[in-house]
Amino acid sequence: MIDDIRLDSKHPLQHQLYQELSERILDQRYPSGRQLPPSRQMAHDLSISRNTVNAVYEQLKAEGFLQSFAGKGVFVHEDIKSAVTPSGPGLHKPVGAGMRLPPLPALPRLKSKPVEDASLPFQPGLPDLDAFPIRSWNRTLHHQESRRSLRGYDSIQGYQPLRRAIAAYLRTSRGVRCEEHQIIITNGAQQALSLLAEVFLQSGDNILCENPGYRGARNALGRFGNPLVPIPLKKHVLDVEALAGLGPARLLFCTPTHQYPMGGILDLSQRMALVQWAQRNGCWIIEDDYDSEFHFYNKPFAAIQGMFENAPVLYMGSFSKTLLPALRVGYLVVPEAVVEPVLWAKQISGGETPLLTQATIAEFIESGQFTRHLRRMRQLYRDKWQLFQHEVTEKLGGLAQPVAESAGMHLVLEGNFDDLALSQWLKTRGFGSTPLSAHFLGEDVRTGLVLGFASASEREITQCVATLRSALAKQ
Amino acid sequence: MIDDIRLDSKHPLQHQLYQELSERILDQRYPSGRQLPPSRQMAHDLSISRNTVNAVYEQLKAEGFLQSFAGKGVFVHEDIKSAVTPSGPGLHKPVGAGMRLPPLPALPRLKSKPVEDASLPFQPGLPDLDAFPIRSWNRTLHHQESRRSLRGYDSIQGYQPLRRAIAAYLRTSRGVRCEEHQIIITNGAQQALSLLAEVFLQSGDNILCENPGYRGARNALGRFGNPLVPIPLKKHVLDVEALAGLGPARLLFCTPTHQYPMGGILDLSQRMALVQWAQRNGCWIIEDDYDSEFHFYNKPFAAIQGMFENAPVLYMGSFSKTLLPALRVGYLVVPEAVVEPVLWAKQISGGETPLLTQATIAEFIESGQFTRHLRRMRQLYRDKWQLFQHEVTEKLGGLAQPVAESAGMHLVLEGNFDDLALSQWLKTRGFGSTPLSAHFLGEDVRTGLVLGFASASEREITQCVATLRSALAKQ
Repeated sequence: MIDDIRLDSKHPLQHQLYQELSERILDQRYPSGRQLPPSRQMAHDLSISRNTVNAVYEQLKAEGFLQSFAGKGVFVHEDIKSAVTPSGPGLHKPVGAGMRLPPLPALPRLKSKPVEDASLPFQPGLPDLDAFPIRSWNRTLHHQESRRSLRGYDSIQGYQPLRRAIAAYLRTSRGVRCEEHQIIITNGAQQALSLLAEVFLQSGDNILCENPGYRGARNALGRFGNPLVPIPLKKHVLDVEALAGLGPARLLFCTPTHQYPMGGILDLSQRMALVQWAQRNGCWIIEDDYDSEFHFYNKPFAAIQGMFENAPVLYMGSFSKTLLPALRVGYLVVPEAVVEPVLWAKQISGGETPLLTQATIAEFIESGQFTRHLRRMRQLYRDKWQLFQHEVTEKLGGLAQPVAESAGMHLVLEGNFDDLALSQWLKTRGFGSTPLSAHFLGEDVRTGLVLGFASASEREITQCVATLRSALAKQ
Repeated sequence: MIDDIRLDSKHPLQHQLYQELSERILDQRYPSGRQLPPSRQMAHDLSISRNTVNAVYEQLKAEGFLQSFAGKGVFVHEDIKSAVTPSGPGLHKPVGAGMRLPPLPALPRLKSKPVEDASLPFQPGLPDLDAFPIRSWNRTLHHQESRRSLRGYDSIQGYQPLRRAIAAYLRTSRGVRCEEHQIIITNGAQQALSLLAEVFLQSGDNILCENPGYRGARNALGRFGNPLVPIPLKKHVLDVEALAGLGPARLLFCTPTHQYPMGGILDLSQRMALVQWAQRNGCWIIEDDYDSEFHFYNKPFAAIQGMFENAPVLYMGSFSKTLLPALRVGYLVVPEAVVEPVLWAKQISGGETPLLTQATIAEFIESGQFTRHLRRMRQLYRDKWQLFQHEVTEKLGGLAQPVAESAGMHLVLEGNFDDLALSQWLKTRGFGSTPLSAHFLGEDVRTGLVLGFASASEREITQCVATLRSALAKQ
């Protein structure tokens, strides 16, 4: 009777026997009313303990698969037939054939695949993971790790001491006008963008984006199908004068203190014109201040958020570059009237940050360790930039042109080559990069490579440039 | 000239002076072309160091606020006027008056406010925070905390060893059919629901929800405005026979192994009928297995996800109750063909979990500590349940009726009282709860309290019941 049951020694026996029996009952190989062998016999036939068989029988009885009658034995439950029969086929297939799934969801309109592990050297956005002060970070973690108040639920807005620390940091370092109640902790920059899309966009609203620009922002802001309207660049910054010809928009995404990826900085008169344009046109500016801590070609500028009281600016930043990507912590700074709608969206969509992570960052900032870390990283990245620029100028002369303004944590190398193919080939050599053309909307693209040198060692910088030279010289 | 500038000693002087000067330039109190005093004089007048003034002047020059002419001095930049004048008013207001913001986003249709700190005893869903094995947890954390591979970016799907550990746990403990590639780590249960809404729902698709049921699911699934269709309960489980009269739907949200909040369990024939109905009608079942580790009235049943190969089931769970809410880690188990669409939605919306948190949970499970912890908590919560039930029966007889099946981590007390007012009043006494009526869709509600006893101490259990008795006896 049970001669078709095979148990292996790799998995828990009780679990296997439960699965084998319940499957046979569900697909009616063991029909309703059929008697099962006594547990003693089943145990003997399968060479397992009788306790295991009894436990499985009990579980199957509790769940309604089996029923037992005193003195008669154990039977497949008589209700099962009535549950299956009136409903037609579907459940009568042999085991393993499976059911027909309901209609599957469509994949989004976007082309590229979800990003997998992106921790190769030269991957744009990746900081130097080896230079992270892991010992002092862990000491801070240990101060916080046992606190009971970090175990339960907390405010959707984010851990209050972290919001306070971020507000103080942004006021003094970035000129941002903010108090802690305007700060919303996010799960990296991507969630910040996603929440803004959810809160601000109605069907048909246009979104203005720098072209070339940051792809993650386009994916998040365009996720409900709103049109993405490219803003052309002029001298590596968004062309403020071009805005007048682009029609109305609800959101404008920009990187005014360091255009991504080209590196230009909007000067004061351009900033004023941008804010005035936004105000006159009822458009919100999303200011992504993604790497202002590390500018080398120019001194970092204050954020446009701080230029005017109540400017129509939604400011965002993250700790992915200043601390570690793996922390997944970013922040939004929004006018008071925008806080509640964003909190609503965050509550509904989920995505809060573990309290211990938030508390550790808060102490790391308030104790002054964050500022010291930034100071060290600024020097380290500046040294790497100088080496990288020197290598590129010496060895790639004529093959690719560095865009000096882009230097922060990455450098753009422009050149006339198939940048997608080159980027993929570099990956096989162990070097990350993104093709410049992928940052463009539409067909009119320029080619080149975006190389994040912050994550590369001196040796990797030399090696990567040599590898690039050999590839480009062959063309 | 600078007699209206006041600096205080509480904030960095350089930052204050930068703000004071840039504001005066932006609102044209210091018009274009105006000369500023030499840094020596400014420093003397404000009683600050000349270095501070020089640093601010340099910053303002770099940003385009000021310009200097050799031998003549420092002036407000002449480009500023041209940026302001042609654009009309807007920027001419006195400082502090602020700008007019663009149109603000609307608040969602939903009524209640975003949840703030929800860590009071008896708050439903909250585990016993004091019983958490913080020492062995921290030891596990310390094994993982310094690993370089946990510092960068990782797969959107979630840390592979954690997915492997969850798959093994769900196969043996919950009868779920899954491999690690079907698991997607989420930011608690809420993000899981939100991702499913984003992936599966088209405009006009209906969503079926148990009534009463879990409010968080309704908020997440209904966030794009899709109609929420209530499924009535019958004997504390969803009435499978009623489905035929409810019309087509794309998603059906349910808690088949322990109806939330009423506690009923679908028996085998009801489960089979539910799955068959879903298959015939092209509807996906979201199975929220929110507290199956802790059932006391009945033995926990296997998940319906595991009943059939390729069942149309999207299975979800979280570590908020089995470990800690503050970790914000949940998981989805979906058929292979659904993985990529969900990863797309997750990549676009953000919301990954810090790698150190994921790695710590993975080791905690794989080392067997998770199973030991669950065993201890099961005993602890069972003791609390018995005490709570005894207190309720003894002291509230006639005033409120406990729903025995609901017992897992919470107990439902039904009664004819204003449950919203009572819940709010209890909060002022230091006890969490949710009103039963808030779990209903529509106007036809029953009243009562949902009380999460897992988080309450023995003393708090006695106190809470006494407090309830005094309140109910007065009515």
